[in-house]
Amino acid sequence: MTHKLVLLRHGQSQWNLENRFTGWVDVNLTAEGEAQATRGGELIKAEGIEIDKAFTSVLTRAIRTCNLALEAAGQSFVPVVKDWRLNERHYGALQGLDKAETAAKHGEEQVKIWRRSYDIPPPAMAASDPGHPVNDPRYAGLDPQALPGTESLATTLERVLPYWHDAIAPQLKRGRTVLVTAHGNSLRALYKYLTGISEAEILETNIPTGIPLLFELDGSLKARSHRYLGDAEAAKRAAEAVANQAKAKK
Amino acid sequence: MTHKLVLLRHGQSQWNLENRFTGWVDVNLTAEGEAQATRGGELIKAEGIEIDKAFTSVLTRAIRTCNLALEAAGQSFVPVVKDWRLNERHYGALQGLDKAETAAKHGEEQVKIWRRSYDIPPPAMAASDPGHPVNDPRYAGLDPQALPGTESLATTLERVLPYWHDAIAPQLKRGRTVLVTAHGNSLRALYKYLTGISEAEILETNIPTGIPLLFELDGSLKARSHRYLGDAEAAKRAAEAVANQAKAKK
Repeated sequence: MTHKLVLLRHGQSQWNLENRFTGWVDVNLTAEGEAQATRGGELIKAEGIEIDKAFTSVLTRAIRTCNLALEAAGQSFVPVVKDWRLNERHYGALQGLDKAETAAKHGEEQVKIWRRSYDIPPPAMAASDPGHPVNDPRYAGLDPQALPGTESLATTLERVLPYWHDAIAPQLKRGRTVLVTAHGNSLRALYKYLTGISEAEILETNIPTGIPLLFELDGSLKARSHRYLGDAEAAKRAAEAVANQAKAKK
Repeated sequence: MTHKLVLLRHGQSQWNLENRFTGWVDVNLTAEGEAQATRGGELIKAEGIEIDKAFTSVLTRAIRTCNLALEAAGQSFVPVVKDWRLNERHYGALQGLDKAETAAKHGEEQVKIWRRSYDIPPPAMAASDPGHPVNDPRYAGLDPQALPGTESLATTLERVLPYWHDAIAPQLKRGRTVLVTAHGNSLRALYKYLTGISEAEILETNIPTGIPLLFELDGSLKARSHRYLGDAEAAKRAAEAVANQAKAKK
């Protein structure tokens, strides 16, 4: 049996545009990000994919991308579950900083280490910081000890995978087609797990915004194949644009 | 203990505008309907209401109203559950017909009976009709016998109330503030149950589109009070506009 999973990274956000570290800050989509989400939904529709269940984070940019994509696919009625475990990687004390300025201050290499090392987190945000998730009512029902003040890609993966196993995988095993609308790093965590690529390889893997990535999974829910819907060249160019985003402006 | 419940009727749809019987036909919002939904969310925010859980139907116009209102309230992260039991009343063979034409053909009184009698349903839609819910994939998981081909307000109430008792009331009893974004008649069913008004009174009660209706409920979840958020005069005028909708154009 082949299981179908669609991963969709949220469309451009205001801080993607401004080149600032976003993480768990609840920044909204730009008009271009909304258009990307709609085009993503149109690609799902054009491919004839019928989603049975959708999962997203508790961050507005991913939720709106999920809603807009389902609307464009004519599938608004699909159940959507929102969970913090699909949130973007928490960027600690870097959240809110302009990426180019951070690069100019700390050096492009240090920023690349923080952004792209597998297991080195940026400096943590203090729990007393109003921006720390323990101070945000949307996480009020959770154990404060479960809420990060910073994350590496490794620790992001460690909190995404339990949700995969507990909530997403059972749906796929029941034959449901699943859409996960989330963020660059929570989706990279799933991508690494599903494809079995190395830590080095995932660091070089960039997922473009708004382009649905269709996985076909085998019986043990490992990737048999995966491809971006629509124009393959456009997906490649979009991924390269993500890779170039960290580089300091000249 | 006081329980808080907000009812919100979806914003203007394309067929509201064209004055056609809609029922379960999945018509989208107009631009004005989107703006109404957004204003509804702004009123929720201005009132300082924090929604814990939202319920809506499986019809796009209610889902989008729910999403737009939560976005405008800054509460996109609230869990939303979609269920067919909150759908609009099924209008049987009248679905898709222009209301004024139907009135001209059958007489204004007959249309008023179909729209506004408590327990007389319009002629049923045949199960072989492509528009019958048994032929719509979104209801594929349900027992076909549960799916109506026509409904009166009485039978609408009979299928809304089990959902109230099973899904919505337990959330309120746990102290959660609940938003229900639905349709003129599924909301009238709840309104009748919560206020205990008579069959005759509910027929004269009109719920305007896009204006949140805040209920404060007592310990047995009956209405202690209810009021429209924002400008009370505007809500009254909007309700009167709904009442006039059924009248045939001169």
